[in-house]
Amino acid sequence: DFIYSLENDVKPSLGSSDEALDKFIERGIINWGGTRDLMEKGMMFVKQARSPETSNRLCLLLEGAPTSGTSALAAYLAKNSEFPFTKVINSREMVGFSESSKCQRISRIFDDAYRSELSCIFMNDLEHLMGYSPIGPRYQSLVLDAMYSLLSSSPPDGRKILVICTSKRRSVLEELGLLSAFTAVIRLPYITYHQDVKLVLDESQALSSEEIDAVMKDLKNGKIFVGVKKLLGLLDSMRVMKGVDSRKRVAAFINLLEDEGVFTREQ
Amino acid sequence: DFIYSLENDVKPSLGSSDEALDKFIERGIINWGGTRDLMEKGMMFVKQARSPETSNRLCLLLEGAPTSGTSALAAYLAKNSEFPFTKVINSREMVGFSESSKCQRISRIFDDAYRSELSCIFMNDLEHLMGYSPIGPRYQSLVLDAMYSLLSSSPPDGRKILVICTSKRRSVLEELGLLSAFTAVIRLPYITYHQDVKLVLDESQALSSEEIDAVMKDLKNGKIFVGVKKLLGLLDSMRVMKGVDSRKRVAAFINLLEDEGVFTREQ
Amino acid sequence: DFIYSLENDVKPSLGSSDEALDKFIERGIINWGGTRDLMEKGMMFVKQARSPETSNRLCLLLEGAPTSGTSALAAYLAKNSEFPFTKVINSREMVGFSESSKCQRISRIFDDAYRSELSCIFMNDLEHLMGYSPIGPRYQSLVLDAMYSLLSSSPPDGRKILVICTSKRRSVLEELGLLSAFTAVIRLPYITYHQDVKLVLDESQALSSEEIDAVMKDLKNGKIFVGVKKLLGLLDSMRVMKGVDSRKRVAAFINLLEDEGVFTREQ
Amino acid sequence: DFIYSLENDVKPSLGSSDEALDKFIERGIINWGGTRDLMEKGMMFVKQARSPETSNRLCLLLEGAPTSGTSALAAYLAKNSEFPFTKVINSREMVGFSESSKCQRISRIFDDAYRSELSCIFMNDLEHLMGYSPIGPRYQSLVLDAMYSLLSSSPPDGRKILVICTSKRRSVLEELGLLSAFTAVIRLPYITYHQDVKLVLDESQALSSEEIDAVMKDLKNGKIFVGVKKLLGLLDSMRVMKGVDSRKRVAAFINLLEDEGVFTREQ
Amino acid sequence: DFIYSLENDVKPSLGSSDEALDKFIERGIINWGGTRDLMEKGMMFVKQARSPETSNRLCLLLEGAPTSGTSALAAYLAKNSEFPFTKVINSREMVGFSESSKCQRISRIFDDAYRSELSCIFMNDLEHLMGYSPIGPRYQSLVLDAMYSLLSSSPPDGRKILVICTSKRRSVLEELGLLSAFTAVIRLPYITYHQDVKLVLDESQALSSEEIDAVMKDLKNGKIFVGVKKLLGLLDSMRVMKGVDSRKRVAAFINLLEDEGVFTREQ
Amino acid sequence: DFIYSLENDVKPSLGSSDEALDKFIERGIINWGGTRDLMEKGMMFVKQARSPETSNRLCLLLEGAPTSGTSALAAYLAKNSEFPFTKVINSREMVGFSESSKCQRISRIFDDAYRSELSCIFMNDLEHLMGYSPIGPRYQSLVLDAMYSLLSSSPPDGRKILVICTSKRRSVLEELGLLSAFTAVIRLPYITYHQDVKLVLDESQALSSEEIDAVMKDLKNGKIFVGVKKLLGLLDSMRVMKGVDSRKRVAAFINLLEDEGVFTREQ
Ligand SMILES: Nc1ncnc2c1ncn2[C@@H]1O[C@H](COP(=O)(O)OP(=O)(O)OP(=O)(O)O)[C@@H](O)[C@H]1O
Ligand SMILES: Nc1ncnc2c1ncn2[C@@H]1O[C@H](COP(=O)(O)OP(=O)(O)OP(=O)(O)O)[C@@H](O)[C@H]1O
Ligand SMILES: Nc1ncnc2c1ncn2[C@@H]1O[C@H](COP(=O)(O)OP(=O)(O)OP(=O)(O)O)[C@@H](O)[C@H]1O
Ligand SMILES: Nc1ncnc2c1ncn2[C@@H]1O[C@H](COP(=O)(O)OP(=O)(O)OP(=O)(O)O)[C@@H](O)[C@H]1O
Ligand SMILES: Nc1ncnc2c1ncn2[C@@H]1O[C@H](COP(=O)(O)OP(=O)(O)OP(=O)(O)O)[C@@H](O)[C@H]1O
Ligand SMILES: Nc1ncnc2c1ncn2[C@@H]1O[C@H](COP(=O)(O)OP(=O)(O)OP(=O)(O)O)[C@@H](O)[C@H]1O
Ligand SMILES: [Mg+2]
Ligand SMILES: [Mg+2]
Ligand SMILES: [Mg+2]
Ligand SMILES: [Mg+2]
Ligand SMILES: [Mg+2]
Ligand SMILES: [Mg+2]
Repeated sequence: DFIYSLENDVKPSLGSSDEALDKFIERGIINWGGTRDLMEKGMMFVKQARSPETSNRLCLLLEGAPTSGTSALAAYLAKNSEFPFTKVINSREMVGFSESSKCQRISRIFDDAYRSELSCIFMNDLEHLMGYSPIGPRYQSLVLDAMYSLLSSSPPDGRKILVICTSKRRSVLEELGLLSAFTAVIRLPYITYHQDVKLVLDESQALSSEEIDAVMKDLKNGKIFVGVKKLLGLLDSMRVMKGVDSRKRVAAFINLLEDEGVFTREQ
Repeated sequence: DFIYSLENDVKPSLGSSDEALDKFIERGIINWGGTRDLMEKGMMFVKQARSPETSNRLCLLLEGAPTSGTSALAAYLAKNSEFPFTKVINSREMVGFSESSKCQRISRIFDDAYRSELSCIFMNDLEHLMGYSPIGPRYQSLVLDAMYSLLSSSPPDGRKILVICTSKRRSVLEELGLLSAFTAVIRLPYITYHQDVKLVLDESQALSSEEIDAVMKDLKNGKIFVGVKKLLGLLDSMRVMKGVDSRKRVAAFINLLEDEGVFTREQ
Repeated sequence: DFIYSLENDVKPSLGSSDEALDKFIERGIINWGGTRDLMEKGMMFVKQARSPETSNRLCLLLEGAPTSGTSALAAYLAKNSEFPFTKVINSREMVGFSESSKCQRISRIFDDAYRSELSCIFMNDLEHLMGYSPIGPRYQSLVLDAMYSLLSSSPPDGRKILVICTSKRRSVLEELGLLSAFTAVIRLPYITYHQDVKLVLDESQALSSEEIDAVMKDLKNGKIFVGVKKLLGLLDSMRVMKGVDSRKRVAAFINLLEDEGVFTREQ
Repeated sequence: DFIYSLENDVKPSLGSSDEALDKFIERGIINWGGTRDLMEKGMMFVKQARSPETSNRLCLLLEGAPTSGTSALAAYLAKNSEFPFTKVINSREMVGFSESSKCQRISRIFDDAYRSELSCIFMNDLEHLMGYSPIGPRYQSLVLDAMYSLLSSSPPDGRKILVICTSKRRSVLEELGLLSAFTAVIRLPYITYHQDVKLVLDESQALSSEEIDAVMKDLKNGKIFVGVKKLLGLLDSMRVMKGVDSRKRVAAFINLLEDEGVFTREQ
Repeated sequence: DFIYSLENDVKPSLGSSDEALDKFIERGIINWGGTRDLMEKGMMFVKQARSPETSNRLCLLLEGAPTSGTSALAAYLAKNSEFPFTKVINSREMVGFSESSKCQRISRIFDDAYRSELSCIFMNDLEHLMGYSPIGPRYQSLVLDAMYSLLSSSPPDGRKILVICTSKRRSVLEELGLLSAFTAVIRLPYITYHQDVKLVLDESQALSSEEIDAVMKDLKNGKIFVGVKKLLGLLDSMRVMKGVDSRKRVAAFINLLEDEGVFTREQ
Repeated sequence: DFIYSLENDVKPSLGSSDEALDKFIERGIINWGGTRDLMEKGMMFVKQARSPETSNRLCLLLEGAPTSGTSALAAYLAKNSEFPFTKVINSREMVGFSESSKCQRISRIFDDAYRSELSCIFMNDLEHLMGYSPIGPRYQSLVLDAMYSLLSSSPPDGRKILVICTSKRRSVLEELGLLSAFTAVIRLPYITYHQDVKLVLDESQALSSEEIDAVMKDLKNGKIFVGVKKLLGLLDSMRVMKGVDSRKRVAAFINLLEDEGVFTREQ
């Protein structure tokens, strides 16, 4: 079952950040495995961020391997925080920026947020934002410093701020000393149970239910280890194979899973 | 047989990107080995990119060793996608650009593309575009970041985009984390079978059919491992040896193959 | 018992640096373990800095692992030095600054201080101020040089200056040769004794006294090693679990301590 | 015998590039060892570059150890290509240029060339042009990228271009991925045979024929390994020893050869 | 006994460099150990610099571990050279300067000096001036080059210059090739003999003579290894413990010496 | 005996480069050991550079360990070349210059030289000019490239140029590929024979002839290894010990030699 599906989303007051957040949840939130639990945990921190009894700054990190769905879940939390001021920090808008312009842009967004009593900032893909790359390794120190300063300094009196971030490389953030700036960290897993695969296949509607059964039968003879985004992406390829014979489609899909290395048969 | 030959190409509406694409297919597409299969696979992704049921962003990578023909095949796909907006991102136009001007140029091309409902962008030789070189190693982080941002962010609502790229160093892209931004990767092989060599020799018309037979006989006593571009290049040297005796030409060609290290005799 | 609590803080003459200093002492100063001793030692140096018989420049470093409370204690000392000129050097205000602008800003603050007979400067988190990060490692040499110059050069005749700094990486400062610029260094420990944990729990008022007893009973079967800031942060999560059953809250808190790796059960 | 000697060079239409090319052939081309063969091979590629049946871009590399005569031979080929547009890319004119100005200058020369139907560009000492040095190692990535872009992109329709380059470090070009941009590579050897030494001595006219005989007799008892430029340079020192006794001159010359490490006596 | 004490310093013609030099001799020059010998050696070089029979450029380096008193002694020599033009090169005035501005500033001071017949320049802490730091290691090459140029080039005809420098890292200067630019190097030791400690304690007047005796008795059971600046700094802490009981003060001081690692008891 | 002594130098036409050259020969040229031979060898190359029969560009390198006297000898050669245009390239004038300004300055001097029929350029201390330092190692690539371009490109038709350079690190120049740009290299040795020491002592007139005899007697029991500049520098210290007793002066001088590590007694 879907926890969140864009199609059914009635959009009463479409602020621009809502649109920006929706882009990260292109295929809704399918409730596989521990999704609901993780989301509740996340919403607990959102609640904590609002509470007048707690620190006036709460930084939450959602981390997981690529395609594990961190961006979608984080965007979901940001959207549902229903904080009057919500803002997305987007690397797309800063393509080609110098380090210092990047810092200024990010810093200004925090300054804007501080004007609102309750504000929420969504920073996707921290390593990418700071230009991290493992060859070197390289990263933009100015941006790293800015992030650290912004995450660890309190808003003015009487203001509360919630910062939600995502990361694919927790260990890098740790080494860079940025992890300690977060109040809490939530880890997102890959799909490994067959019933979770089935759930995603069902909800995606890319295959007929007979095809799904056939796929699931094949999968029994092996192990699956895949991010939800990857799985949904592979199902897209099935959508354009409409006219094709069912058996071929099933075989093609199993093939695809094997090619991508997410399904390994047991010998 | 030729799949695509520039000579026979009737050019009804020569947009500038068509010309730019044609430059990459200087000698047409000869249908050796799995060429047609690879191309059909590629066209499947083009179809998927158009489909309204799938994600509104599809990034396809064609990778292969130098001279394996990746640029030509990718250009062919881009040309035959028949997307109303097609644009070539060309390193030649950015010679001497600073990193940030490069980013701006590339970014602007994506912005232009977003204005069209269906658009296709062809980026040749990703590593070269980002100034990658193994001594150091070096690369332009700003350009890498820009590519990642552009490849992984969705176009505005109601727009669909197809990005076709080529690479000679898949492993570098993987290490840099750029590979995960691609929806699919197609690998191009080298020519290893003798019948494929013959097919290319036949189509190139640089040697007479008797000469080709003589060459093929010689090649039987060894192994060949060559990119299609390299092979066609070596055949060019034969074209200027017009007046020369046939036996000498055959010997000269075999020599050339050995000199270049693409043909190794068996002991 | 609290040594310092913001709530009870009557603010007669709120200069802007007082506000800035208070931000670092968000939850007051709880008198656990050796807190009072450390503070007295610190105040001794403050006294020494004022004395006309001593050198006219005194640089004090408070160092400790992350969350050990260095910033709060240092801010407390700066506030209670009651020097007529007190100034906070804040990385937040220098986000995106170039190295040389950073140096100018810091240098100007020292120049301003020199105009006052007695002045106190608080520089939080030296490594962060100089953009230190262990990957590389990297740091801003210009800023490091500026710090060294400023810490080791005397104010004009008849002026006295006290500089209070904090650091999380004493060894880095040592290697960079900055440590020798300090007159004295005070080290802050982590909480390890159970009675100190209890003291903090009591003062924080996030749990009822029954819950605290239950928690303390559980903790007996293991070791605790935690910074005071971390512990107070985890207690915040308890505040939003108001309606929940006491036993669950205690269990949740113990869980939290284990998850964060600050409490390890003995086998 | 001389293949090419500047003295006898009747200069009917002295374009400035002809003068520039002549500077590289200060002492003409002496036909020692395989010189004529190498030059014919080179002229074959020049012919291929002109041919309408071949690719419209041909890049030729002449490589050899320092002083092996690559620059002279390459300049000779460029001069004798008799392409209507011939241009020399000269590092002397770009002393102190920033990387990007260098790129622009080089790029503009290619653009100029594209305006002519047949054009030839001579780039001497590629590694030096890109500021390569083995300590680091260092090189100017922007210039490397520019070279790669320019060498591997085709001229506009109906234009043909021939690029002749020289290099002292083939392996570096290979590692940098630049070698694969060349259509063909010609390697120049050092002088090792005694008759080749004699030929050069004869043609240089720095020693009398009796002296040459004496020198040759001495050389028999050892091995020689020397670039033609080096050998001609050492002979220059003989020219200023005019008044000196013949035996002393012979001894002095043999000494010089030994000192420079190009002649080693056999024990 | 004191060789030089600021208090007794009658200041007839207080040029600004005199004031600047005095800042380095905050506590005068106590005549412990070989101080007078070292100073006489230094004054010999000052004399040599003045002599019309010697080279017109003399560069003197005083080197020693941190806190060994190099800056004070060097400043003393500069002050007592009584050269008509004396100038202090001060890193404090160049905080945040770019490398080239730094070079210009230093270079201009030398140019100014050249206008005087006899001039003396004091450059404190060479490594710090060139931004040296062991992590990397890093240093400002432009500044290093400037120093080398300035130290090793002669003043105009008829001018004589004396340059006095200090350094904490002789080995670094050696490796950088800067050491060879100095005419002479004087090394300053740490205090190791107990009578030298006593001498310093006596002169400092921070402890009463009974307390000093008690301290000296305690020190007998161990080894001391300390820079004179460090020792005087620790005595400052005693000055603010005025009201305290003598025994406690002695114990506190011994404690301090042990904490700082400059006194180690023998087992 | 002196080969060249400034005192006796009648200066008829004092161009500014003559003055600049004289600065390098502060103490004349003492004819110890092989000095005259080396100088004659040098003058041979000067003659070769003038000769119309030889290449129109000759680059000469004088190399030797620090203080071996390379700068003085090179300046002597440049001065005595009596080329109408003589120019000194001086690092002192380029303190704080950016790499590219440095290149422009050097390049302009060559351009100026090309205007004269015969011109001589003196570049002292190549490594220092290009900012070489072994920590890193570092050097200014732009300057290195400029040097290489300038040393290896010919002057315009009918012009002849002689470039005289010095170096302390021949191996570095070799590794950087700069050595091969030189026509010839002359190596300067250290003083090792006792009679050479005596010759220098005699000529310097810093000691009386009795003192010299005493010194020489002492030196017999050990080995000496010293650059002529160093030795003359140490003798300067003797000049200021005028009033002192002869025996003490001799002992002091021997001490100095030992302290500096240039004289080692045999056991
Ligand atoms: N339970 C779920 N959790 C997360 N995403 C889900 C879930 N169910 C469906 N989705 C969909 O899966 C996709 C997850 O993509 P998302 O961009 O969040 O992945 P990611 O881990 O951030 O990937 P990347 O490595 O590219 O950053 C979204 O389109 C989202 O709508
Ligand atoms: N089946 C084929 N696939 C690809 N190219 C072909 C094929 N048949 C003929 N060609 C021709 O071979 C050449 C391939 O060159 P292309 O530039 O694509 O190679 P490449 O792998 O990109 O080389 P490079 O390593 O230089 O980038 C083109 O001229 C193309 O017209
Ligand atoms: N005895 C104490 N010492 C220090 N801080 C205390 C103490 N008692 C309570 N606190 C509170 O604990 C918090 C300590 O936070 P502080 O920022 O000083 O930690 P820190 O070590 O600087 O952390 P960080 O690693 O993030 O820099 C403050 O909110 C302070 O009010
Ligand atoms: N057969 C020959 N091949 C090449 N050069 C020759 C030949 N005979 C004579 N020469 C002369 O030898 C010299 C070769 O110098 P050239 O500059 O080409 O050498 P190079 O290998 O480029 O040296 P460098 O390592 O300095 O770049 C020229 O002056 C040329 O006129
Ligand atoms: N004999 C002495 N030699 C040097 N300094 C002395 C002596 N006697 C007393 N002093 C005092 O000791 C202090 C030495 O400090 P100084 O700054 O010279 O040390 P330093 O070695 O340069 O330290 P740093 O490592 O901080 O550069 C000065 O205040 C000086 O007045
Ligand atoms: N035979 C000689 N050769 C060289 N220099 C001599 C000789 N006799 C006397 N001198 C004097 O010795 C000094 C040599 O100094 P010079 O600057 O040439 O040495 P250097 O090797 O360049 O030193 P540095 O390592 O500082 O560059 C000069 O003052 C010169 O006048
Ligand atoms: Mg993501
Ligand atoms: Mg290609
Ligand atoms: Mg802190
Ligand atoms: Mg050459
Ligand atoms: Mg000092
Ligand atoms: Mg020299």
